[in-house]
Amino acid sequence: MNQSQERIVPAAGLQALEEDIFRKLGFTEEGSRLAAKSLVEADLRGVSSHGALRIPTYAARVQHGVVTTDGPLELIADHGATAVIDGRHTLGQIPGTRAMELAIAKAEEYGVGCVGVCHSHHYGTAAYYAQMAAAKGMVGMSMTNTAPLMPPLGGLKKVVGTNPISIAVPSRRHFDVVLDMATSTVAHGKLQIAAKEGKPIPLGWATDAQGNPTTDAKAAIDGGFLSPVGGPKGFGLAVIIDLLCGPLVGSACGDKLMPAARFFSAPQNCGNLFLAIRISAFRDLDTFLEEVDAYIDFIKSCPTNDTVDGVYMPGELEALRREQRLCSGIPLPEAVVRDLCELAESLGLEPKSYLA
Amino acid sequence: MNQSQERIVPAAGLQALEEDIFRKLGFTEEGSRLAAKSLVEADLRGVSSHGALRIPTYAARVQHGVVTTDGPLELIADHGATAVIDGRHTLGQIPGTRAMELAIAKAEEYGVGCVGVCHSHHYGTAAYYAQMAAAKGMVGMSMTNTAPLMPPLGGLKKVVGTNPISIAVPSRRHFDVVLDMATSTVAHGKLQIAAKEGKPIPLGWATDAQGNPTTDAKAAIDGGFLSPVGGPKGFGLAVIIDLLCGPLVGSACGDKLMPAARFFSAPQNCGNLFLAIRISAFRDLDTFLEEVDAYIDFIKSCPTNDTVDGVYMPGELEALRREQRLCSGIPLPEAVVRDLCELAESLGLEPKSYLA
Repeated sequence: MNQSQERIVPAAGLQALEEDIFRKLGFTEEGSRLAAKSLVEADLRGVSSHGALRIPTYAARVQHGVVTTDGPLELIADHGATAVIDGRHTLGQIPGTRAMELAIAKAEEYGVGCVGVCHSHHYGTAAYYAQMAAAKGMVGMSMTNTAPLMPPLGGLKKVVGTNPISIAVPSRRHFDVVLDMATSTVAHGKLQIAAKEGKPIPLGWATDAQGNPTTDAKAAIDGGFLSPVGGPKGFGLAVIIDLLCGPLVGSACGDKLMPAARFFSAPQNCGNLFLAIRISAFRDLDTFLEEVDAYIDFIKSCPTNDTVDGVYMPGELEALRREQRLCSGIPLPEAVVRDLCELAESLGLEPKSYLA
Repeated sequence: MNQSQERIVPAAGLQALEEDIFRKLGFTEEGSRLAAKSLVEADLRGVSSHGALRIPTYAARVQHGVVTTDGPLELIADHGATAVIDGRHTLGQIPGTRAMELAIAKAEEYGVGCVGVCHSHHYGTAAYYAQMAAAKGMVGMSMTNTAPLMPPLGGLKKVVGTNPISIAVPSRRHFDVVLDMATSTVAHGKLQIAAKEGKPIPLGWATDAQGNPTTDAKAAIDGGFLSPVGGPKGFGLAVIIDLLCGPLVGSACGDKLMPAARFFSAPQNCGNLFLAIRISAFRDLDTFLEEVDAYIDFIKSCPTNDTVDGVYMPGELEALRREQRLCSGIPLPEAVVRDLCELAESLGLEPKSYLA
């Protein structure tokens, strides 16, 4: 089968199918809904690396017992505007959604709320949670750590993850401003694509096995390393996120954190941190939204050369994609649809009835 | 005079001289102390761009009436764990220190505190404030916006500042982990140095006047633009910081924000945001500190190639420099010492008695 072939699936049907898959795997009604929603949102926004593609791996991890389905979540710390939820190694989307809801509730009361999750697992896109706060008239922040993928400058061992952070700021006339960035220069997938196509990669994306910056994608893949964005800046940010998602919340960091894919011997044990800042505690919300809209107008009016087709705000392309895909469906690679349907059938579901 | 000549000055004497300069300029005893402390700390840590070098410009801005000296600061919002302080266009170090103190006090009570400053001015290094929280067993975060210096991808106009962010995490056996990063790939000064020396710059540092990435430092200086770190990542982070330090706190953003140097017609009107997260609200502080120390051991034990002399944590080189300079004095360029002494003399002080 041609991997590049796509199939258009309706968002509602995809959500229903994913929910039923999670139910069949043993998750609660609510847990299934939360996990599926985060994944469908990722596919709607075009972040396909964090969508339906992940489900067969999640299912295998449940079947290997390294992802739990039985809950319930436990609040293991709760002081004023802060709290920690024990994720008990279930899918990170479940405690993640609960944690951001709690951070928002705390921000309603105290102006700001900060909630961590320990014993978590891959939680989908960081943006999903930051956007929850933006939808409530708040600034949202979300971050997670991952198993080590990057060395420090000149380093010869993976010591820190590509630990992403998302910050979302609401607007009124425009889409919310949603930054969601990994702390690597690019995703590892881009090295793989370049290596496959025999194309060079820009300096700064990766190093070879000796830790020297390389333009040779094959050298980067064969024993080389992904590089932090901006060198010490991305490395430093990744280290800070590791500390905030590990020691601060009581989860693993560094090499104590396990991979979430192609590894089935132990729970991932990542951590997440969520922050919500209620804008109305600082300023009149309407005034704020007007000023954000005016700022977006200003940024987007920047003249450009002909290498780009205009200026896009952080998260704008994803929001445009989402609007379009809500109407006309989500294009998914045939292989992703096939794997999802095979999983559904193995669980006794009839996937065709969902995706018609 | 040779610009590269240095003079060693004692930290205590420099602090006393700077305090007296600020007093003579009309600042209160306390404001003078706070402003001087931030600047001396920058010089101790080797961040000379944010130290004594700035004082003649600050003084000129006071004398032009675009920086005020008369305070007092006003708390214009105060809800639960959040607050906003009106900086009234005084030196940003004064409301900045007060704001982080208030964020720390709020974190003592609520677990987290978030305090903004509007109508602010250049506040020195972002790290200074984040470190205040780390010294109290908290995670500290500090950010500020600046006048526009960078375009978006393919852009032909400066629309966003090099808006820095600092996050500090305390440790016990090691130095605190202190990330302090501008959102540009490098400081503009590095382009100037390369242009002066006729050396090429790495791709990614800057573009030419047509917005195309360039290795020609002269082209970058002559109408070109500084580039955000990691392209859309650095640009997105700069945009988010502009929104959090502008509309959220009630200060300017984008091109409504004025430069803090070589411009004396209007107040800078930047904003700052400070966050403190009390670790003991999340976990036992001793356990946290042990885990952070173990993590630092792990990161620093990463094997390296011979292009580096080891692995340094964020802020470690600055902390080592500070320890050394507290004992043996701060090396300052002769030109910086001369300008500072000339200013002091013009205010009726005898600078030699301080720096002997």
